[in-house]
Amino acid sequence: MIGEIIAIGDELTSGRIANTTSVFAARQLFLAGHEIYAMHTIGDTPKLIGEALKRAINRVDFVIVTGGLGSTTDDLTNEAVADALDRPATLNKALLEKIRSQLQGGTTQLRGLEKLAWLPEGAEVLNADERMAGYMLVHESTPVFFLPGVPFQARKLLVDYVLPIISSWTENSGKHILMRLYKTVGLPEYAINQRLSRIEADNQVNLGYYPVDSEVHVSLTVANQDGGVTEELFTRTDQKIRQALGRHLYGTDQETLAGVVGKILRKNALMLSVAESCTGGLISSQITKVAGSSSWFNGGVVAYSNHVKEIMLDVEHQLLVDHGAVSGQVAQAMAVNLARRTGSEVAISVTGIAGPGGGSAEKPVGTVYIGLFMNNEVSDTLYTFAGSREEIQAITSQTALNSVRLALLT
Amino acid sequence: MIGEIIAIGDELTSGRIANTTSVFAARQLFLAGHEIYAMHTIGDTPKLIGEALKRAINRVDFVIVTGGLGSTTDDLTNEAVADALDRPATLNKALLEKIRSQLQGGTTQLRGLEKLAWLPEGAEVLNADERMAGYMLVHESTPVFFLPGVPFQARKLLVDYVLPIISSWTENSGKHILMRLYKTVGLPEYAINQRLSRIEADNQVNLGYYPVDSEVHVSLTVANQDGGVTEELFTRTDQKIRQALGRHLYGTDQETLAGVVGKILRKNALMLSVAESCTGGLISSQITKVAGSSSWFNGGVVAYSNHVKEIMLDVEHQLLVDHGAVSGQVAQAMAVNLARRTGSEVAISVTGIAGPGGGSAEKPVGTVYIGLFMNNEVSDTLYTFAGSREEIQAITSQTALNSVRLALLT
Repeated sequence: MIGEIIAIGDELTSGRIANTTSVFAARQLFLAGHEIYAMHTIGDTPKLIGEALKRAINRVDFVIVTGGLGSTTDDLTNEAVADALDRPATLNKALLEKIRSQLQGGTTQLRGLEKLAWLPEGAEVLNADERMAGYMLVHESTPVFFLPGVPFQARKLLVDYVLPIISSWTENSGKHILMRLYKTVGLPEYAINQRLSRIEADNQVNLGYYPVDSEVHVSLTVANQDGGVTEELFTRTDQKIRQALGRHLYGTDQETLAGVVGKILRKNALMLSVAESCTGGLISSQITKVAGSSSWFNGGVVAYSNHVKEIMLDVEHQLLVDHGAVSGQVAQAMAVNLARRTGSEVAISVTGIAGPGGGSAEKPVGTVYIGLFMNNEVSDTLYTFAGSREEIQAITSQTALNSVRLALLT
Repeated sequence: MIGEIIAIGDELTSGRIANTTSVFAARQLFLAGHEIYAMHTIGDTPKLIGEALKRAINRVDFVIVTGGLGSTTDDLTNEAVADALDRPATLNKALLEKIRSQLQGGTTQLRGLEKLAWLPEGAEVLNADERMAGYMLVHESTPVFFLPGVPFQARKLLVDYVLPIISSWTENSGKHILMRLYKTVGLPEYAINQRLSRIEADNQVNLGYYPVDSEVHVSLTVANQDGGVTEELFTRTDQKIRQALGRHLYGTDQETLAGVVGKILRKNALMLSVAESCTGGLISSQITKVAGSSSWFNGGVVAYSNHVKEIMLDVEHQLLVDHGAVSGQVAQAMAVNLARRTGSEVAISVTGIAGPGGGSAEKPVGTVYIGLFMNNEVSDTLYTFAGSREEIQAITSQTALNSVRLALLT
C-alpha cells in the first residue's frame, strides 16, 4: 500500500525540533513492504493542515498525521479536521471519564486535559487503555491515523496499532520485498559505489547509498511478484555485496558499530575498557547504549584534565611534559595502564584536539592519537580529522571502535 | 518571504536517515524572518521531484531543494529538473576543469565525479572555490536553490550563500520579528502551559510549546510592522515569562543544560567531576560537547562494573554487598570519593537500572540514585524514571545536570 505522512507543528517548520517521528514511521512502513509517496511538514495552521489532508486522502491508500493533538492552546489538528473534512468535534464520554478517573481531583489540570476528549465525528480511539491521544478516521474510504506529536507515544501507537491494522488489509497482496542495509566504515561513498557498480547494473535489484556521519550505508532492495525469485536474487546479491565490501562492512540493518564490537568481545570472552580525553565519554556512551553491554564492558575513565590522566591512569607527569597530552606516548600509557588497573583484556584510549580552541601549527585541531592495548601489546595510531568539534568527536569515537573491531578480527 | 523546502532521497522516505538538513534550513530561515509554507520529503523518483518542484515554484517566493546531486547512480535531481522544467543538462566546463585539477590523475574516480559538472540550463554554481555540488536557478521569476544532501555541505552553502542572497532581496521589507526560545526542566507541558496561559491571551504575541525529551521548550514570537512596538512588547513579555517559569527555566535559544551548568561553575571558579554507572558516559559526553568545558570539567569515571567502582572510586566491597550497586549509599560513596581523588569541588554520581534487563520487584527498571558532593557535603536522591533504555539514560543525565544547576543556584 502507498501512504503519505503529514507532521504538524510550528516547532517543525521553524526548525526548532527535528521530526523524528515521521522518520520512524517511514522506516517501519517501508520494512513492512509499504511505500511512502511523500512526507510533509506543515505549521499549526488549520487551513494548511486541511489542504494537505484532503490532497493526501485523494491520492494514497492511507494517511498518517502526527502532532497537534495535545492539550495546549496551539494544538489545532482536531479543529482542522473538523473544518476540512466537515467532521465537527464531538465529546467522547468514555474518554472523558477515563481522563477524569486518572487525574484524582485537580480541577485546574482537568480543564486543560478535557480538550483531549473532543474528537472529530467518526473518530475511533486507537488505544482504549492507555493515556495517549490517538485515533483513526476512515474518510472517503481512506483510513487516516492521527497520532500525538510526542515521539515515544507516536511510536508506541504506530507499532502496537497502526502497523497491525494496515498489515491486516494487505496480507497476501502485492510484491514480495526483501531489504537489507549494509553498514560500512573506512571508505568514501564514491569508492563504495565503484565497488558495487557491477552489482547495481543488474536492474532487478535496487541499491541506495547513504553517507551517515563518517559511515556509508548501502541499501539493497529486491522486489518481485514471485517470492521464490525475490529470495534467490536477494541471497545471490547479498553474497556479492559482502564480498565486494570486505572488512569495511561492519554490520547490517539495526546493528551499531559498538554492538558489533560487543558481539565479538563476548564471543571471545574478553572485557573492554575505554580511556577518553577529547571524546569526553562519547565512546563509553555509545557502548552503554547497547543493552547487555555490562557483559563485555568494564567502564573506564574520562581523563579530560591532565591531573585525571595522572591520578586515574598513572600517566607519568614527565611524559605529559615531554610529549604533551596529545601524543602517541600518552595514548599508549593511557591504554596499557587502564587495562592493568581494570583487569580488562582489551583497552582503547583517545587523546586529541577536538577544537575549536587548543590547536597549534604542530598539532592542529583534529589531531588525534588512538591507543590500543590487546594481547598484552600496546600500539598507537595518529589521525588527522576535519570538521566541527562534534564531528571530530564523532569520527574519533567511531574510528576507535572500528580499531577494536579490526584488531579483534585479525 | 515565504519558502518551501524539498528534500530528496529514498533514504529519507524509507526512514533510514533523519532529514536534519531541512530542519537546519527551516530554523535559519525562520530566524531570518522568513516563513516556511511547507517541507516535503520525497524519494529518488524524477516524476515526483518534478511535480513537487513545479507546485512549489507556483506558490511560494523561493524554493530550497536538498539531495540527489551526488556522483552515485541514484542521484537523479538534475534529471528531474531537466524534464520538469525543460532545462536539459549542460556541461559546465569551468566546473569540470576544477574537478579534474583537484583529482590529480585517477581516471576511474573521474568518470564518477564528471557527472557533477553537468547542470541544468541556466544554473549558476553557488560556490566557485569549493568542492561541493550546489547551484541556483531562477525559474519563472522564482529562485530555486539546489543543495547537496550531505548535511555539512548543505549547511555551509545555506549559511554562506543562500541566506545572504535571500536577505539581499528582502531587506527593509516586511515585519520586524523577535523570537526567543525558553528551555525548561522539571515541569510537564500542561503545567508550563497553565503558568503562561495569561501571557498567551495577549494575542499580539505567539507562544509555542514543545516537549523535547524530558525538557519543555517554549517559543515566544513577536511580529509587528513597527520595530519599536516589537521591541517593547518583546521585552515586556520576556520579563513575564521569566517570572512565571522561575527556576524551571534553565536557559534560552542555543543554550544547553550542560553549557549553563558550566557557566555557573566557571563564574564560581569550581571544577566538576562525574562518576557514571547506568548513564555510561552520557553525562560526561554532554558536558564535553560544550567548547571550553576543560575550564570547569576535570573528567571522571565510567564505573560500569562493580570492580571499577571499587578500584577507581574506592567504593568499599562490603557497601556493594550490603546495599547493592544501585543504592543511595553507593551513589554517595561514588560522588565523595571521586571529588576527593580528583580534587574537584563538585562531583555528581549516578547509579541505576537503565534496563531492559536487571530490574527486580524491589528495584525495578528506572530506579536511579543520583549523588551530589558540594560544599564538602554529600547527599543522594532516589528517582524512578520510565521509558526505554535510551530514554532512562537521557532523563537521568539531564536530571543529574539539573541537580548540579539547582544546587549551585542555592
